[in-house]
This record gives sequence, structure tokens and C-alpha cells, in this order.
Amino acid sequence: MFQSFEVTSTPQFGRERVDALRASFDELGIDAFLVPRADEYNGEYVPPSAERLAWLTGFTGSAGVALITRNQAIVFVDGRYVTQLAEQVDGSVFIGGDLVGEPPAVWLSRHGSRGLRLGIDPWLHAGTEVRRLAASLAEIGGALVILPHNPLDRIWANRPAEPKGAVVIQRIDHAGLAAEEKIRRIAEDLATRDHQAVLIADPSSVAWIFNIRGSDVPHTPHPLARAIVHCDGKAELFLDKDKTNAEVKGYLAGLCDQHAPDMLVERLQAVAANGAKIAVDPDIASYALGALIEQAGGKLVESSDPAKLPRAVKNKVELEGSAKAHLQDGAAVTEFLCWLASVKDEQVTEIHVAEKLEATRAKVGQSFQNPLKDISFDTIAGAGEHAAIMHYRVTTASDRHLKTGELFLIDSGAQYINGTTDITRTVGIGAVDEEKRRFFTLVLKGMIAISTARFPKGTRGCDLDPLARISLWKAGVDFAHGTGHGVGSYLSVHEGPQRIARLSTQELLPGMILSNEPGYYRPGSFGIRIENLIYVKEAEAVDGGDIPMLGFETLTFCPIDRNLVQTNLLTSDELAWLNAYHQLTREKLMPLLQDENVKRWLEGATQPL
Amino acid sequence: MFQSFEVTSTPQFGRERVDALRASFDELGIDAFLVPRADEYNGEYVPPSAERLAWLTGFTGSAGVALITRNQAIVFVDGRYVTQLAEQVDGSVFIGGDLVGEPPAVWLSRHGSRGLRLGIDPWLHAGTEVRRLAASLAEIGGALVILPHNPLDRIWANRPAEPKGAVVIQRIDHAGLAAEEKIRRIAEDLATRDHQAVLIADPSSVAWIFNIRGSDVPHTPHPLARAIVHCDGKAELFLDKDKTNAEVKGYLAGLCDQHAPDMLVERLQAVAANGAKIAVDPDIASYALGALIEQAGGKLVESSDPAKLPRAVKNKVELEGSAKAHLQDGAAVTEFLCWLASVKDEQVTEIHVAEKLEATRAKVGQSFQNPLKDISFDTIAGAGEHAAIMHYRVTTASDRHLKTGELFLIDSGAQYINGTTDITRTVGIGAVDEEKRRFFTLVLKGMIAISTARFPKGTRGCDLDPLARISLWKAGVDFAHGTGHGVGSYLSVHEGPQRIARLSTQELLPGMILSNEPGYYRPGSFGIRIENLIYVKEAEAVDGGDIPMLGFETLTFCPIDRNLVQTNLLTSDELAWLNAYHQLTREKLMPLLQDENVKRWLEGATQPL
Repeated sequence: MFQSFEVTSTPQFGRERVDALRASFDELGIDAFLVPRADEYNGEYVPPSAERLAWLTGFTGSAGVALITRNQAIVFVDGRYVTQLAEQVDGSVFIGGDLVGEPPAVWLSRHGSRGLRLGIDPWLHAGTEVRRLAASLAEIGGALVILPHNPLDRIWANRPAEPKGAVVIQRIDHAGLAAEEKIRRIAEDLATRDHQAVLIADPSSVAWIFNIRGSDVPHTPHPLARAIVHCDGKAELFLDKDKTNAEVKGYLAGLCDQHAPDMLVERLQAVAANGAKIAVDPDIASYALGALIEQAGGKLVESSDPAKLPRAVKNKVELEGSAKAHLQDGAAVTEFLCWLASVKDEQVTEIHVAEKLEATRAKVGQSFQNPLKDISFDTIAGAGEHAAIMHYRVTTASDRHLKTGELFLIDSGAQYINGTTDITRTVGIGAVDEEKRRFFTLVLKGMIAISTARFPKGTRGCDLDPLARISLWKAGVDFAHGTGHGVGSYLSVHEGPQRIARLSTQELLPGMILSNEPGYYRPGSFGIRIENLIYVKEAEAVDGGDIPMLGFETLTFCPIDRNLVQTNLLTSDELAWLNAYHQLTREKLMPLLQDENVKRWLEGATQPL
Repeated sequence: MFQSFEVTSTPQFGRERVDALRASFDELGIDAFLVPRADEYNGEYVPPSAERLAWLTGFTGSAGVALITRNQAIVFVDGRYVTQLAEQVDGSVFIGGDLVGEPPAVWLSRHGSRGLRLGIDPWLHAGTEVRRLAASLAEIGGALVILPHNPLDRIWANRPAEPKGAVVIQRIDHAGLAAEEKIRRIAEDLATRDHQAVLIADPSSVAWIFNIRGSDVPHTPHPLARAIVHCDGKAELFLDKDKTNAEVKGYLAGLCDQHAPDMLVERLQAVAANGAKIAVDPDIASYALGALIEQAGGKLVESSDPAKLPRAVKNKVELEGSAKAHLQDGAAVTEFLCWLASVKDEQVTEIHVAEKLEATRAKVGQSFQNPLKDISFDTIAGAGEHAAIMHYRVTTASDRHLKTGELFLIDSGAQYINGTTDITRTVGIGAVDEEKRRFFTLVLKGMIAISTARFPKGTRGCDLDPLARISLWKAGVDFAHGTGHGVGSYLSVHEGPQRIARLSTQELLPGMILSNEPGYYRPGSFGIRIENLIYVKEAEAVDGGDIPMLGFETLTFCPIDRNLVQTNLLTSDELAWLNAYHQLTREKLMPLLQDENVKRWLEGATQPL
């Protein structure tokens, strides 16, 4: 299993750990300290050795930050995690903060005590975040104290060792473009801009550039590593040699100099020493890295990670790989849904279901000789009112049975060597009432609106987001998350810069993979989300059209619960899309299935409405 | 007639005038000079005395700027005016520039000669524009030269006198809120922000605040005037006393000190002299005004015009007035459309039609005892290929007959004391082919999508814009203008900050009036636009909804050409909207009509499809 359902939170240690942290304040000359969820690689998933926020507070969500002052301990989380926070932390020690409406930088400017000295570990905060904090502290006459070491690490007894996950080569038949060529293009771009080097601080960019994959953190197959690419085409990779076997070392030797991770400081200082212009993405790179470039005499140039956009725009090989991975995944999820359709009232629990789904993906992976490398995130398997918790993670404490008449929401994904998947299906357990069916159909309309959209070049994610919502808005409801996020190629399931969301001004470019996942959530009652992955492509010309358009190609093929659709709410075009989608699903998946039972179920589940 | 169809352009003088202007460069120490369309009030419509761009170049469009260097004369216009520019200016003297893609500030940074000294009249450029120009010139080692007088005005023989249009009071039964109260609120806001005064530089804001209207420029009934509001509630109005009769003078005396316009400099200096913080909107106010505040020792605070948002959010009286004005206008346009439906092939020309429309509005205004005060912009009356020119203005040179089988586009508006209207109808002359009907229906779908939209609070204009386009995008076409602009209350027909457009991040607030006018244009062939005015209001709750929504109420009632609708392209909801709209139009307008012929035509034109 790539996931656990144990209650891992340890709130009982909150008080003593906060006390121990505060005991170090005087010596450090600080009045407060920030403990972010992020590690020094600014990742969504962090290794156990970097789970500082969870260790201190008990909160295990994927986003958050604790502010420990002399007399307050605030854990800032977003709307998704308010309930979870309350359940996981000791309420006599910690209070909740609003990570979106009033994040720490804003909180400090409003409520921080006059002259407050805030300590931070400069490796755990990106440059832009440090700038925000410094500005807020200036407003209250306070100061930011860049600490030479992390005081929390000093009191963390039995801290797990840093990961040494094995690195493998991502072969050209999956990557589609040689690492030499990727490095050449980045170097060429540096030369054009008259920059001498660029610091690659995002491990996913390192993985993409060098065509390698790792296993340091759960669910995202990048190695924790950084790199420097020089304008002359030379590259340096800071990747622990314990993670690379002889073959990988040999492969990397042809591309770059492989150094130990802690050599980065020395090498950056050396490059900076002669006044070089070094490009750094201030949204990703640790403040410490930018600062040391400037201290060593280099010129820090703030510039977007050069791998970000080319990584998002998948090449033909990556798109073909992804399509193949999605068919395999669709076959696995179909087999799972067939099983789910057979379960009786109160026969199975959410954990059973999540285990069954992962086991089915693993089994199908074996028979396809394309193993399940990991799941791409912890499965969200929510029955009834649990489905209304957008990022519900079932544990042995929350687990419950699936009951007739309820909606059951399963949002899950897989990592295969040829692609990353992410799919949500909401199914009815037995017969479901008309209200739930109505909202399911409205969510489906939004999902179809994105699937069938065509749009001119230059269209941004924010332009399409309302199309997924308008049917819900007309019914007086909305959903409090974006419509879609970017997805990597056997990399992070949440990949920028592309998104379909209110604030996403990134232009959509052919080759970008995105999720399409509108939803509706009625707290305490039910939740609905339907999600396919899609990619941007040049649309076929239509008669009478006079400008080229872009559109989406669907990657995910897997039945959508027909029993939940109120066909009278669909336009004829929407109904035609659904029927065509199901026909394609049947045609594509049927040849991949072995079990007669599953084939029969797919036949029925994809009949036209 | 409030419009003329004469060819007013005088391109034959271009060369001598440009030569005369260049002859002043050495004395002024400049290498180039900018001639914007805008006057010192930064208005869309300018009086003849400020038509500098037209005088110099012959170009009479509503937006543009000429850059005259020692060896080039470039007139920058946007896409709407490329054709018109080529027709109106002497091509041996002027070349065209791209006002959107490469406006003067950008052009200068790319193509300006090293060290170029650009002269500007600081009264004709807003602060933000001057900042942009200075930054661009810095890039090429050049300099901005703020000229003490406008060299063009010195060579302009027989320049028309400045206008002295009479000012009238906009009574409370149309304004809805007393000027005293408006001034009080602005003063209160100043006090809260610790600003001592605000400069009101936008004549429409002056008109709104003081509840007055003027007649200095065509089509927009604001007087060319500025004001200062102080934090203690005192106000000073810089409005020529020749424009105000005894009654108006008496009314104003109760509100403010009325000064001559040229007293503004002295008064601003006096207020600034003791270091006062003076708020100025740098997007509207002349650079000269901000500069003199700083020179006099004041603190210039850049801040959005305090009247802008309250002016955009109409009160109940303004909305009721607008609704009434729109019914009257709808009755007039209906009578006009009835007449238009009776014309035979090649019987009338575009000018006939525009004259007939204005005459009908004037006649109906008399019978309603609510006279047509002005048209709100020059009527766009385009037959056949002329309709594809988005801002086509018919002249005696371009005029042509209406021919059977063509589409005819009429975009027009009126100024009544109780409201400003703006309506576009595209009608078929006789039978029209299926292709045109198909695109008409697709445009109609976009227009219905906006009309029926519901959306949560916080929704911005940019969020709704794609809803008007998606049906066109799916057909491979688009339109190159925004979907909607704000409209004033017996003020400017183009009023900010509200818009429905790609880049409009202004939140839509209840009470804002907007146009809803998608279109499609096939150059050289045909053009379609359908436009109603709408306003934002709280939407009625729907069963099952869980958050309050906003929506639109339609103001414009007038038949949409049923013969152009391909009903099979409409969803049942869209068809229901169209039929309900026509039924409402019939019910609202029928009691207002006198002529049996027109009533019969309306009956037929509003039958359900």
C-alpha cells in the first residue's frame, strides 16, 4: 500500500514541544518563530524528516504554517483544513488562523506586538515570502531575524533521517526529449538574456531537465535535488550520490557534474564571486540561496524557473504516454467500479474501498507490465457527509460504512512511468434521491462545458473557469476550489503554471495537461465531484470559422454514473457528449479488460441515455 | 440633428501643419511632439477648440495620438480605426501606428532615436501616461520636455473659441441623491484617510457630484469643469460663470464657491502651500495639475476618483429613471424599425436611415414631453459590408443604399434627462441567407447568456465575458471588442469602472448599468451586433440554492429580428428567454404606441418562435 489510514497525528506532545521551542527564544533574540509545512525544497509532499509542522502541532494537512509567539500558537490553514485542524491539534495550546484571508504576514501587520522580532529558518521560506514578512514587520516596527539554524530541529529528538530514495533514469521513450537538449535550450536562453547561470531550485524541474525520477517523498517521483545550469551549457547537479547507482551515475556524468547537496552553497558562492548574474525563481528558491548569492558578490536576477513552462507543455511522446497510462488506469478504475457496484448496504467501509482501488490498480499494473509506481496522492474516499469535505482523508478513526441512498466520492490517482493520473467519480450507493441527482447533473454540465470548450489563442485559465460554474450559479450554488490544476508527466499531480481558476492568468498552450473537476458540496450532507484529465490541443477547423481555435482532448476514460444523470437537465449537445464519451470509453477499454463480469458491467454502464 | 454626415476631415493641410509644427522644435529644444486626441479634461468627446489631432492630421476618430518627430509623423490608432485612418490622412505625410500593440511609449523605447527629447503639453496627458513616457525615454537615454505652452496652438489659425455651453441643474427627482450629501460623503472619506482635499478632474464626476449637466461637448452632457472638495465639506467649483444663469449660480452658491476655470492653478497652489495631502486620480488628471501641487509644497496622493464608483452604482431613482427612458426609447426605436421593415430594395440610404431614427426619437420625445436632449454618440448605420466596420460612421462619401438580402446594423443611443440609452439591432433587409442567420443566432446566444447569467458576489466583468463568446468560439469565430461597457445616468454612454471585458477586474455591484453587446464581423461582407442595456441586481433566490447570487435586469425593450433566428440552434432555455423577452417588450411598449400601423408591426415582431 502506498497509503496508510492510521491516525498519525500526535497532538499530545504539542504543549511540551511549543514550550521547548519558546525556551530558545531568548538565546536567539526572537519573540516569535514560524514553522511552515514546506521543506527546504518548497514541496507539496515532504519527507518525514521535514514534517516539522506535524511534529510540533499534530496537524498533518498538506498546507499550513504555525506562528509561535511568546504567548500565542496559531496554526494557519485554508478552508479545506479547518475541521481537520480542530480534530488534530490540542485546542488548549493552538488556535486556528486563516491562511488565505489573513496569512502570517498580514496577521503580523495587524496583530503583531510593536517591535516584534520574528525568527525564520531562511531555508524554509521562498524569497517572495520573506519579502512579504519583512514588509509586514516594518509596519509594526519589528524585525525579521534570519536564524543560522532551525531551533525546532535542535529540540526534535529522534528526528527521522533524510531520505535516500533511489534515482532512476526516465528514458527518452517516456521523456520524449533528451536531457542534453533541455540543458542546451536553457543555456541558450541564459545567453540571450546575458545571465551567467540559473539556479534550479524546484526538484520537479531538476527531474524534468535531467530526465531522472526519484523516491524521496510520497506520491511525487522527484528526487530532492537542485541544480545550476550555466550559460555555456555546463550543468551541476546537487544530488546525494547514495541515491544513484553506477548506471545512473554514468548517465549523469555525461550531462553534468554530480555534487553532494551540501556543496551547493560553496558552488553558488564560487559562481557569484566574480559578479555573475544568476537567475533565481523567488517563488520557489529558499531565501537563503538568494541571500548567499548576493553576499558572495553575485547579481540575483529574479526570473521564473526556466523549466516551468516547457515542463507544462508536454511533447508528443509525453502526451502519448499519458494517453496510454490513462487507458490502463481507466481499465483499473472500471474494474474497481464494477466491484463497487456489487457491494451491499453497509457491507464495506471507506478504507476497504480505498484499499480495493489501490489493489486493483496494482493488479492491473502487473498484467499490463506497467507497474503502479505509487498513487499520485492519498485517496479521497468519502461516503455521505464525508464527501462534502473536499480533501477528506479517511483514517481508522473516521472510517464508516457505505450506505444505500448516499453518494460516494472517490478522488484518486496513480503514478505510472508513462504518466500521472487523477480521476474523481461520484457514484450512487443504490437508489439516490432527486435532489442529489439534480446537483450531480449540474456538476456534470460544468464538466462537459470545459470538455467541449473551444477558445482562441491567448485564452487564460481564468477565462474558462466560469464555464464550469454557470449552471451551478444559476441554481444558486458554487464550489470553493478551482476547476482544474496542471498535472505532470510522471511527476507532480499538482503542477504549475497552468490552472483553470479565477486568478490564473497563464495562457493555455497546446500540450498542457489539466484536470477538469467541478463539484458541489453540501456540508454535513453530501458531496459531488466529477474529474477527468484533459490536455490542450489545436482544435479541428469548423465550417465557417475564420480563426484557429484551441480545445481539449480528454485523457481519462471511465464510466460516469448514468443513474445519477437527470437527462432533462442536459441540452441535446450535452447529452450527445455524454453518450459519445461513454461509447468511446467502451471502445477503448473493452479490449483491455479480461474479466467477463467487468466487461458486462462496462457494457451496461456505457449505454446511451 | 445632433449629428452631421459631412466629410469633416481636412487631410490637405497635413503637410504644411506638420512642417509648421516641426519649425518650432529647435526653439523649444525638442526632437518630437505628441498630439493626443484627448483634451485637458481627458474626455472621449472634445469641443472643436480641442480637436488638435483632427486639425493636424485629418483623422477624426474618437481615439488616437500623433507622434511628430523630425522625420516621421505617426498616427497611432486601434484596430477599429485602421481603415478610417488610411482614408482620412495624407499618406505621403503620415504613417499609421498601433495604439494597442505598440503605443507611443512602447514605440519610443523600441524605435526612438538615442537621446531623443520629446515635448509634451502637460495639460493633455494624465499623470500615469507621463510616467510611462518618461520611463520609455529613459531607456533610450532621452528626456521628456514639459512645455510651457502647446506649440500646435500657436500655429492653429482661426482656432474655434472654447465652448460656453449652458449648465442646468439635474433635479433630485432624476439624480436621486442631493449634491450636499454627495459632497458630505466625499469629505467624510477624505477625513478618514487623513487627506485634506481631493481634486475632481473628470467633468462627469463634477456633473455627478454637483447634480448639474452641461453642453460643452457633443453627446455627453457634462460641463467642462473641475472641482476641489475639502475634508471639512467645503467645495470649490471651477466652472465658467458665462455658462451658469442666475438660477444655477444661486443653486451652486449653496453648495460651493464657484470660480473661473483658470483660478484652479492658484487655488490648488494655495491649498498645497501648507503641505496638504491632496488626492488626485493619476489616470484622469492632467500631469500639469499633479506637478503644480508638488511644486507648491503639497503632498500628491494618487487615489481613484472618489465619484467613480458611487456614480457607477446607480441609486433607485436613477434606475427607475433609466427604465422609463428606455421604454420611451424602445417605443421610438420600435416605430423606426416598423418604418425600416417597410422600405424596399435600394429605396433608402444609410444616411436616410440615421436621420429617420433621430427624427423619430425627437418626435416621440415631444409626445412623451421628455425631449431628446442629444444622441449619446454618432449613430452607426452600416449596410452590408459597412456593418463589418465596428465603429462605422456614415458620411456623404461612404453612404450607400440598403439592399435586399443584406444585414443592416444600427447602433445608436439617446440622452434623456432621466437616462442614457444605447441599443444595437441588426435586421435583415428582405430574406437573408442561412449563413448570416446562423451567425446572428450565435451572437444572440451570447447575448442571452449574459442576460440570464447569475453569479456570486465578487464576480468581475472578466468572469462573464467568455459566456458571451463561447457559442461563437465553438463556431470558430470571435469578436474583437469587449462584451459590455458601463453607461452613465444622463451622462457618458461609456462610463467606468464597470465593464464586461477580458481585462476588467472590477467587481460587478448591484446598480451598475452595462451594455451587453456581442457581435460578429466578417470584413468586406457583413456584420452583426445585438445590444441591450442591463443592470446588476440581487437575484431572486432559487429553490435549493445556498448562497445569494447577483444577476441582471434588462433595461432595453425592443424587438430582435425574429426572421434572423435559427431556432434549432437555441436551447429550450434560450428560446424561452427570447419569447419571454418579446412578450415583455409587447406588454411594455404597446400602451406607449399611438400609431395602429406600428402597433400591428410590434404584435407580429414579438410573436413567440
